[in-house]
Amino acid sequence: MSKVNESAISPRRGEDFPEWYQQVVRSAEMAENSEVRGCMVIRPWGYALWERMQGALDGMFKSTGHSNAYFPLFIPLSHLQKEAEHVEGFAKECAVVTHHRLELRDGKLVPAGELTEPLVVRPTSETIIGSTYAKWVKSYRDLPILLNQWANVVRWEMRPRLFLRTAEFLWQEGHTAHETEAEAVVETEKMLGVYETFARDWLAIPVIRGEKTASERFPGAVRTYCIEAMVQDRKAIQAGTSHFLGQNFAKASGIKFLSRNNNEEFAWTTSWGVSTRLIGTLLMAHGDDDGAVIPPRIAATQVVIIPITPKEETRAAVLARATDIAASLRTATYAGEPVRVEIDTRDLGGGVKSWEWIKKGVPVRIEIGPRDLESGNAAVARRDKGPKEKEFLPASSLAVRVPDVLTEIQQTLLDRSLAFRKAHTREIDTMEEFYAFFTPENPDKPEIHGGFAMCHWNGSSEVESKIKEDLKVTIRCIPEDEAIPGICPFTGEASPRRVLFGKSY
Amino acid sequence: MSKVNESAISPRRGEDFPEWYQQVVRSAEMAENSEVRGCMVIRPWGYALWERMQGALDGMFKSTGHSNAYFPLFIPLSHLQKEAEHVEGFAKECAVVTHHRLELRDGKLVPAGELTEPLVVRPTSETIIGSTYAKWVKSYRDLPILLNQWANVVRWEMRPRLFLRTAEFLWQEGHTAHETEAEAVVETEKMLGVYETFARDWLAIPVIRGEKTASERFPGAVRTYCIEAMVQDRKAIQAGTSHFLGQNFAKASGIKFLSRNNNEEFAWTTSWGVSTRLIGTLLMAHGDDDGAVIPPRIAATQVVIIPITPKEETRAAVLARATDIAASLRTATYAGEPVRVEIDTRDLGGGVKSWEWIKKGVPVRIEIGPRDLESGNAAVARRDKGPKEKEFLPASSLAVRVPDVLTEIQQTLLDRSLAFRKAHTREIDTMEEFYAFFTPENPDKPEIHGGFAMCHWNGSSEVESKIKEDLKVTIRCIPEDEAIPGICPFTGEASPRRVLFGKSY
Repeated sequence: MSKVNESAISPRRGEDFPEWYQQVVRSAEMAENSEVRGCMVIRPWGYALWERMQGALDGMFKSTGHSNAYFPLFIPLSHLQKEAEHVEGFAKECAVVTHHRLELRDGKLVPAGELTEPLVVRPTSETIIGSTYAKWVKSYRDLPILLNQWANVVRWEMRPRLFLRTAEFLWQEGHTAHETEAEAVVETEKMLGVYETFARDWLAIPVIRGEKTASERFPGAVRTYCIEAMVQDRKAIQAGTSHFLGQNFAKASGIKFLSRNNNEEFAWTTSWGVSTRLIGTLLMAHGDDDGAVIPPRIAATQVVIIPITPKEETRAAVLARATDIAASLRTATYAGEPVRVEIDTRDLGGGVKSWEWIKKGVPVRIEIGPRDLESGNAAVARRDKGPKEKEFLPASSLAVRVPDVLTEIQQTLLDRSLAFRKAHTREIDTMEEFYAFFTPENPDKPEIHGGFAMCHWNGSSEVESKIKEDLKVTIRCIPEDEAIPGICPFTGEASPRRVLFGKSY
Repeated sequence: MSKVNESAISPRRGEDFPEWYQQVVRSAEMAENSEVRGCMVIRPWGYALWERMQGALDGMFKSTGHSNAYFPLFIPLSHLQKEAEHVEGFAKECAVVTHHRLELRDGKLVPAGELTEPLVVRPTSETIIGSTYAKWVKSYRDLPILLNQWANVVRWEMRPRLFLRTAEFLWQEGHTAHETEAEAVVETEKMLGVYETFARDWLAIPVIRGEKTASERFPGAVRTYCIEAMVQDRKAIQAGTSHFLGQNFAKASGIKFLSRNNNEEFAWTTSWGVSTRLIGTLLMAHGDDDGAVIPPRIAATQVVIIPITPKEETRAAVLARATDIAASLRTATYAGEPVRVEIDTRDLGGGVKSWEWIKKGVPVRIEIGPRDLESGNAAVARRDKGPKEKEFLPASSLAVRVPDVLTEIQQTLLDRSLAFRKAHTREIDTMEEFYAFFTPENPDKPEIHGGFAMCHWNGSSEVESKIKEDLKVTIRCIPEDEAIPGICPFTGEASPRRVLFGKSY
């Protein structure tokens, strides 16, 4: 299998990005569609990535004072109805349980035992958690409540796409209740910061953090904050959100308490979440024409050792050397943890094995064959470089060298993503330029456009609607950096600051 | 609050065991009923226990070669229908999704968007996972598949009870597919062994392992193995199951492969699971009249330090000493992990705080007050001893002493459980004695009976039915220990060995 002139993934990114993405997910054996419309099967390699993400985030949540808990999968219809905007936002796309039994009639299973009140499979848990907090909170002494839940949620999707938009997905949802508005605002921003740090330091994805406009807010929130990543088709992906819910849900659910001044007051609540969508974001941010590229810090396997055993007589010696290298690598640490090493002992050709691991995106491959036994070397290949590029290093030096290599790869991926975003982000000051920026140059490739535009905006939702209708472009967020006033190119009116426009997933 | 002559939990175990259990769960703040019938809220202290269980089991699954994956929450009706016995067993108690949208009509939300095929919320995942394995498996080279899933499942329950029987519960379900019958049988028994080890070494619960009789088998299984624990009302709890499914599900789902001999063959599958029911088992096995008692190895917090700060002028010094003790304890290890320590800095009386931790079951409490500052001592109290019993130890010795204390507590709890089970297990050889053993001595306390009976049995399901009808007693399992033949007391017929009879949850 010669791959010198072709890529492992067909089509390439530049040819058909959406199809390239599907092929990367498939080739990396990360996930696949199930027979249930919109629901995916997360395969072991994809799930291992999610486990790593969970581990890292969970540690960050706990070190910021949060505990985990678990709330019911089902929400009574009447609960969902309590918050008016919320129900508007989520009622359209819910799985509804109406029966609690099946009966065989004429050899066919049919629903039976109709429920008096239908139950909704949670699309998010503000209402069900709110009704529980209402029972727990009596006095200001019971606050704050700082909980997180790892769970599955369901939102019916008409155009599902693996990891990015699926009917069922896995996520975490933090739900906190506070005594004061100020505390809740601090919490909302703190968790946005946790997401930003996680995206940058673990996923090697630089994000722009900021607030959503009113039209893009979470239904029922007072303010929604987000982190937005640019992926390689220059589109934006909302990678995490943190909501300041004010007293809206507290009023809807009755979370009230006796204050320090002996008044009955409503609590101030927040919610924040990231989901398995992060896996899709990661693949689209770092993947190349040979498949997935996993940043070392989040990779379940950081180094794969590939013994090459063409001859039976040297097989045992090669495997023994591989085992020695693995053992020495496991004594080394990277980012505060032992290096995660696997040996691929399968009885397949070295090339076949190598290409599988390239497509899966393992950061470092170490090949060891009969000829390396005498030289004492091993061939080290990095996933951030070309598939044929190898460096021959003394096997005895690997425990020292590999952690440095992992550090370099992690940094390279972050630098590349940052450079890519910079190259495709432009400050735009005229409407003409704006429309040209977001209009595909090639009508055959409608997805290729400029990228991110930083533009002034007069704050009007009419302008937002018009742009969305004309170009499918939305304001991704109002960034948090320094606000420099200017003129809105769409209306000629005053603008307090530039905001981030982009096409999005 | 004097507790010298009364217990923290009312009623006591001996007065009303079921109500005692509810009060232990409530007082320990482990879980509570939600507004959704049969669904519980797992509170942070309960969830932390589940996280510890997950961590320990997950490590054991991985070290026996398994990986995690995730499969859809929903099962199309037609899938469930594929395995005849399976559908019989699970169809009675399923949550059925029939609509995928809600609409506001006259201000009321109503289900809309009826599905062409209803979806069942998974009660267990053999069928949906089987249909995926059928796609993955082509050749014997694709086997074995060794996967596990951590997930929520739903089985409608008419008489829900926190942790023991809830409509929604959390569990893990392992699903494996093998080339040969022998391999699948080895897997089934291996995972039963993992559960047995986990129950004994982590939960300090001795279990009896064995096979279920035909009438108690998992619907669709060829053989079901289980571990059975005795709790303090002498009843049995099935704490984990491992099923050898033969080729039943492989045939229903079409998991077939080209064998080494080039024949098309069906795979041999297994499934195995434990759930949040383990939390209930733990509480019922070790709890006492003062609340939960958590074995150190599974406790999220093993040591709580309770600073007693009655006077403002010594407050800072006491807190500083508490912090020092915590830091030194965290450098110590127990069972291969750093000791898990918490300081309760809340501004409440020492007694109030102490009793909260007693009810929560924390293994070791260390009280430190103003008087201890000069003496350099701290008061160490163990949860396996009386609430007033304290040992004064030099604070400087705690990092050395506490790991030993934790080891002792863990052993004491296991020894106690084992002694309790022995005291309430009897070999019975006559029908009269058997009926007397399981008939309550006191009609006011119908739950108090003999315990476990080891009896001969002729293997007939008619005998099983009669006993179940008469006494609500079932064969919990056919133990794996040495089989010594005898005479069945119910029929006078030959019996290959004694089996375990008991009342069960």
